[in-house]
Amino acid sequence: MSKFWSQVVRELEPYVPGEQPQIEGLIKLNTNESPYPPSPKVIDLMTHDAIDRLRLYPDPNSKKLKNTIAGYYGVTADQVFVGNGSDEVLALLFMAFFQQDKPLLFPDISYSFYPVYCKLFGIDAQTIPLRDDYTINFSDYAIANGGIIFPNPNAPTAIGKPLAEIEALLQRNTESVVVVDEAYVDFGAQTAITLVDKYPNLLVVQTLSKSRSLAGMRVGLAIGHKDLIDALDRVKNSFNSYPLDRLAEAATVVAFEDDAYFKSCRDKIIATRNWTVKELDKLGFKTLPSQANFVFTEPVSKNAADVAQYLRDHKILVRYFNKPRISQFLRITIGTDAEMQALIDVLKML
Amino acid sequence: MSKFWSQVVRELEPYVPGEQPQIEGLIKLNTNESPYPPSPKVIDLMTHDAIDRLRLYPDPNSKKLKNTIAGYYGVTADQVFVGNGSDEVLALLFMAFFQQDKPLLFPDISYSFYPVYCKLFGIDAQTIPLRDDYTINFSDYAIANGGIIFPNPNAPTAIGKPLAEIEALLQRNTESVVVVDEAYVDFGAQTAITLVDKYPNLLVVQTLSKSRSLAGMRVGLAIGHKDLIDALDRVKNSFNSYPLDRLAEAATVVAFEDDAYFKSCRDKIIATRNWTVKELDKLGFKTLPSQANFVFTEPVSKNAADVAQYLRDHKILVRYFNKPRISQFLRITIGTDAEMQALIDVLKML
Repeated sequence: MSKFWSQVVRELEPYVPGEQPQIEGLIKLNTNESPYPPSPKVIDLMTHDAIDRLRLYPDPNSKKLKNTIAGYYGVTADQVFVGNGSDEVLALLFMAFFQQDKPLLFPDISYSFYPVYCKLFGIDAQTIPLRDDYTINFSDYAIANGGIIFPNPNAPTAIGKPLAEIEALLQRNTESVVVVDEAYVDFGAQTAITLVDKYPNLLVVQTLSKSRSLAGMRVGLAIGHKDLIDALDRVKNSFNSYPLDRLAEAATVVAFEDDAYFKSCRDKIIATRNWTVKELDKLGFKTLPSQANFVFTEPVSKNAADVAQYLRDHKILVRYFNKPRISQFLRITIGTDAEMQALIDVLKML
Repeated sequence: MSKFWSQVVRELEPYVPGEQPQIEGLIKLNTNESPYPPSPKVIDLMTHDAIDRLRLYPDPNSKKLKNTIAGYYGVTADQVFVGNGSDEVLALLFMAFFQQDKPLLFPDISYSFYPVYCKLFGIDAQTIPLRDDYTINFSDYAIANGGIIFPNPNAPTAIGKPLAEIEALLQRNTESVVVVDEAYVDFGAQTAITLVDKYPNLLVVQTLSKSRSLAGMRVGLAIGHKDLIDALDRVKNSFNSYPLDRLAEAATVVAFEDDAYFKSCRDKIIATRNWTVKELDKLGFKTLPSQANFVFTEPVSKNAADVAQYLRDHKILVRYFNKPRISQFLRITIGTDAEMQALIDVLKML
């Protein structure tokens, strides 16, 4: 603490990302990265010419990238926003839409960055409890609000919501922005991008960090009505003109163009997840139904924190949240088959 | 405009960066980029292994990069902050330090992003006029304030301030944060980093986008007292955990390590600048004394806006600001010798 700090800094409770330890031989199942590298075509971008051009600023409007994403999802380029990871996209949209007189609504168990943004931007938040089975109940969101945000599938529960329920929510909630945070949507849930032409208050956020194997490149996107994208651009252009670098933009274009590679990685992860859930079942773990690239699982007969520590002692890192309602769960990222086999083998010895 | 926008979005006046047109054969002297590519060693970073690791998040604390920068400048790693270009560093520090009861002070002619940040974060600003010769007069800053920021050298004037005057300002102004924005310092001014151990309210900001030829990679940094860096980290970790991607971090390490290459590019640019100023003199232009990689020059007998258009018609892009006090100037980036020769040749035909 220092007398030079703005008031807001004193009150912040920063987000704590999953650890990135540099330990040889560690099996890293704690930050929901992909176990598979990005498209092999990304290396082809790294030419002498491309490196020489790093002396020049990127296109502040990311035109080529927006066109690629628009083509992929069947929307227009002016319905696309891009930012430095979906975290930056979220930060900017909290400023753009959620600084309202009424509270922002989100699930009590959800992405733990949401309350952090609220503190940073002075946004009043109201959390809505998940049902006892850890699913979101949209009926509980039919109250006065300055916005609604939820991940689909939810994190860290991994449970997705059917598109019909999201559409029903949009039909009821027309006076504030509804953000569907689809960081994990590619692993089994249905995207709400198909609804953006119908609901001008719908904004869908995605990331390149999970299903597209580019966590190290920092790219996120939002798709919605042109007026919402305009607002995001206004805030972004009042904050940082070029948050995406030249190589990140180019790698993202490849990530969308090489769709066969994307699908093969995604399918492998889904298959490995299904195998992992079955194996956890056999060990007596209770796992919530997952549509993500991670599982949220309860050791039941053992203390979750102890199991996390036990795994860590065996060089396997998983995420444990010491928080109400979920302190008996572990969030385990789906790695390669070999990594998950190693996890199960170590758990068998427990 | 849309009913879904937060109030702040309605009132924003976003920053407009220099154009990045994709025109074949264009001589681009409008955004103060380096005419020379980054260190040739950067290409060596682009291995299959590094590309494969893009699936993993970067180190959120950028430890290796901070150590490199700390070593280069003779400070400790906890005195170093890094961000996505100096624009992001500036945005975060406006939040961290300048949201105060008293107004932030900066020159009336200065980096035009400063008032944009003030609007975004609700910061009261008071601009202090430059002297008639376009230099900053620090005596005018001896008034109640919630912070002081100025570029050194100033932009777009290109005029630097001696370190002794900056230190005198710091001796007088001890109760608020003083930020020296050194985007262009490497081209002839003196860095204030040597003063950070003495003045706990001094923060020095630099960028990799100008003298280090990495505008396309988006890296900026700040150096100051550990308590100021702590505040920046708190805000950054409440906004976006990993604003620097893996390749940007690696390229920045190389940029500092390959100091001989950096110095040779810088020296070439300074030599070309000095030649350019002499040639502009011969053409009757009045150029402010430059310590930057650009010159701020007055055509005198001609209208500056007309000259900018004339140059554009000849495929040479320079920056023109239609603003009070400087509407008769052009800001011209120093390119290669050949590019500046082409500029002078075209101006001779005017």
